[in-house]
Amino acid sequence: MKQSQLFTKTTKENPKDETSINARLLIRAGFIDKLMAGIYTLLPLGLRVMKKIENIIRQEMDAINGVEIFMPSLQPKENWLKTGRWDKMDDLYKVKDSGNREYALGSTHEEIIVPLVKRFISSYKDLPCYIYQFQNKFRMELRAKSGILRGREFMMKDLYSFHLNESDLDDYYQKAIKAYFNIFERAGLKDKTYLTYASGGSFSKYSHEFQTINLIGEDIIYICEKCNLAINKELKSEVKKCPGCGSKKFKEAKAIEVGNIFKLNTKYSAPFDLSVTTEDGKKQTVIMGCYGIGVGRLMGTIVETFHDDLGMIWPEAVAPFKVHLLSLGQNDEAEKIYNDLNKTRIEVLYDDREISAGEKFADADLIGLPYRLVVSDKSLKAGGVELKKRTAKQVKIIKQENIIKNLK
Amino acid sequence: MKQSQLFTKTTKENPKDETSINARLLIRAGFIDKLMAGIYTLLPLGLRVMKKIENIIRQEMDAINGVEIFMPSLQPKENWLKTGRWDKMDDLYKVKDSGNREYALGSTHEEIIVPLVKRFISSYKDLPCYIYQFQNKFRMELRAKSGILRGREFMMKDLYSFHLNESDLDDYYQKAIKAYFNIFERAGLKDKTYLTYASGGSFSKYSHEFQTINLIGEDIIYICEKCNLAINKELKSEVKKCPGCGSKKFKEAKAIEVGNIFKLNTKYSAPFDLSVTTEDGKKQTVIMGCYGIGVGRLMGTIVETFHDDLGMIWPEAVAPFKVHLLSLGQNDEAEKIYNDLNKTRIEVLYDDREISAGEKFADADLIGLPYRLVVSDKSLKAGGVELKKRTAKQVKIIKQENIIKNLK
Repeated sequence: MKQSQLFTKTTKENPKDETSINARLLIRAGFIDKLMAGIYTLLPLGLRVMKKIENIIRQEMDAINGVEIFMPSLQPKENWLKTGRWDKMDDLYKVKDSGNREYALGSTHEEIIVPLVKRFISSYKDLPCYIYQFQNKFRMELRAKSGILRGREFMMKDLYSFHLNESDLDDYYQKAIKAYFNIFERAGLKDKTYLTYASGGSFSKYSHEFQTINLIGEDIIYICEKCNLAINKELKSEVKKCPGCGSKKFKEAKAIEVGNIFKLNTKYSAPFDLSVTTEDGKKQTVIMGCYGIGVGRLMGTIVETFHDDLGMIWPEAVAPFKVHLLSLGQNDEAEKIYNDLNKTRIEVLYDDREISAGEKFADADLIGLPYRLVVSDKSLKAGGVELKKRTAKQVKIIKQENIIKNLK
Repeated sequence: MKQSQLFTKTTKENPKDETSINARLLIRAGFIDKLMAGIYTLLPLGLRVMKKIENIIRQEMDAINGVEIFMPSLQPKENWLKTGRWDKMDDLYKVKDSGNREYALGSTHEEIIVPLVKRFISSYKDLPCYIYQFQNKFRMELRAKSGILRGREFMMKDLYSFHLNESDLDDYYQKAIKAYFNIFERAGLKDKTYLTYASGGSFSKYSHEFQTINLIGEDIIYICEKCNLAINKELKSEVKKCPGCGSKKFKEAKAIEVGNIFKLNTKYSAPFDLSVTTEDGKKQTVIMGCYGIGVGRLMGTIVETFHDDLGMIWPEAVAPFKVHLLSLGQNDEAEKIYNDLNKTRIEVLYDDREISAGEKFADADLIGLPYRLVVSDKSLKAGGVELKKRTAKQVKIIKQENIIKNLK
């Protein structure tokens, strides 16, 4: 893509009403725009990152047999009354229509998916099944202060699993944990992300969070020094030993919750009487699990984790483009390289704008694509183009015919 | 995909509360599920169609230099007050938060995109620009009665264009018309779809609709018998001659509005003072156009257009899968074919379920994929597998080694 086609512009100043690094850098670089507290527009570069993350998550959900659907945001009040959450959830946006009928704006989708699945499932033979979606969620968040880490409207992947019994749920739960770690690995966060025991609510002893160590995090976790499992602070008074290895040595850390998974058991299937006939003809309430990841929060966590004083540093798998091509008064050469890269499907952002070299370099650092290619008088005299990794200090000159080879 | 992995099931009976063909067939075949009047969940097969249509539209918007973003659904009341639409639009859902602040649930996005663009644009050099999104829209629709043709929550593509002057808008408007016809051609609807003059409101003499002839349509149009332009009934009293060729011969038809484009001029840029500095240093309000397509409505129109008594007949470009592979007790052979098709990236739905042949045939007709492949004792004895186009009466036997060749 040519940068002159982008209508966005970068800014040097931090937005006054944002304190978090993710919001500051994403806004300054033109990845997102703030509409209101906790509500952002995804601009072209930000949307590209979001879609990359979504595709990684989609592939990993498909790999554990997830089937994708798309549920509505407007949800009938009756369903929420049935689970008792209409009055209990403080962060639920409620909408009235002209006939005074009330609706919830979906903050989660148990109230929709359970009656949906009930229409299709009647026998043990119909189980297990695994259903997921990517959907904008709405939560009336009072402390919308951490940029896209905690939004009022935010993109989320939620998967729901349906089982005949708890051991089948347990098996799938383990598969989901692996799939989640695959996601965090591909997003560059695995080293800093810990499977964390958290409160399970009334329906299960524990739930599990995936917590990425970061100072901006709102959670405090205790990481077992022996086996790398962690415990959320909320459990620390009751859980004194590591649930994995029994060790009592922990280190404390602040962390961002980048995912969470729950064994719901019959908490939501019972109110809707979602049940099947077992092999021996009995009626059995379906056992459920649910598995969430905030796609926007993951994007924000990546920025909080990978940046320096000059800007963002995108891991290649989620970068909006792989290469930032800068032309310093050498548009013919640059155009040729741009076309070659596009032909070989290497994703490239080409800075073809008529601005100073300094501004181009600053923007490249701020936007933070993995590779920077500079074509200038100087580089051509030195024998080719300048290649620099965003993470490297040094540039190297490579011949034009070797560009593709160096970037593959 | 294996059909046993789908949690959905087909039904023979029409849903009692749906009168439209699109809703009946899509629900019976398990493409969509009705949550409330005008609000549907997209099930796996339906979501696949939706994404195919989205991708066609995306390619055509990219081809006319559209840049994709994603704007929020929750929108500040202030912006809607500024354009005067907060009190005027009857179908706007309004939401209050716990602090009694009011929001609109986006039914359209002029109120968001204009202030957004204003933050980035200041000079004539920044124009033109073209920005689009795919977004769930919300409209408090009183007559939600035509299935997914008229929803309360529905997926829409909206593009907004920004220009220095009207002649630049005019040029782009013509390009958009061509892009729209490309979309309808790829979706199989071009022959039945007419560019239709409609009321332009206060800001422009005409707007333009794309109307697809169909008896379920809520519009009546008059098609010029000479040049194929059409006029919406709402204009018929003032426009007596074809605006294209001047002919007075028209034929009347019912039609579904599958797209609409407007010259907005300064209707929305003026209230937000979206302006640029011209080349000679003057201030100039930006000229706008907007271009909508309801993705769900397009999907519904395809069903209304292509079906028979047995079920849907998907055009290949938007079919959820290209091939429906049916195994009648020959799972080993079928599995082999299934793997071969997947390897060559021919999209296939494989009916591996343990149900009767009759049920499999009925489902294949109802779901309506372009090609049906049957592996059975009978077909193997006859020398291979049975291939049938959904639109053909006859089957033909082809050798297993020729399957790929026949489907490419």
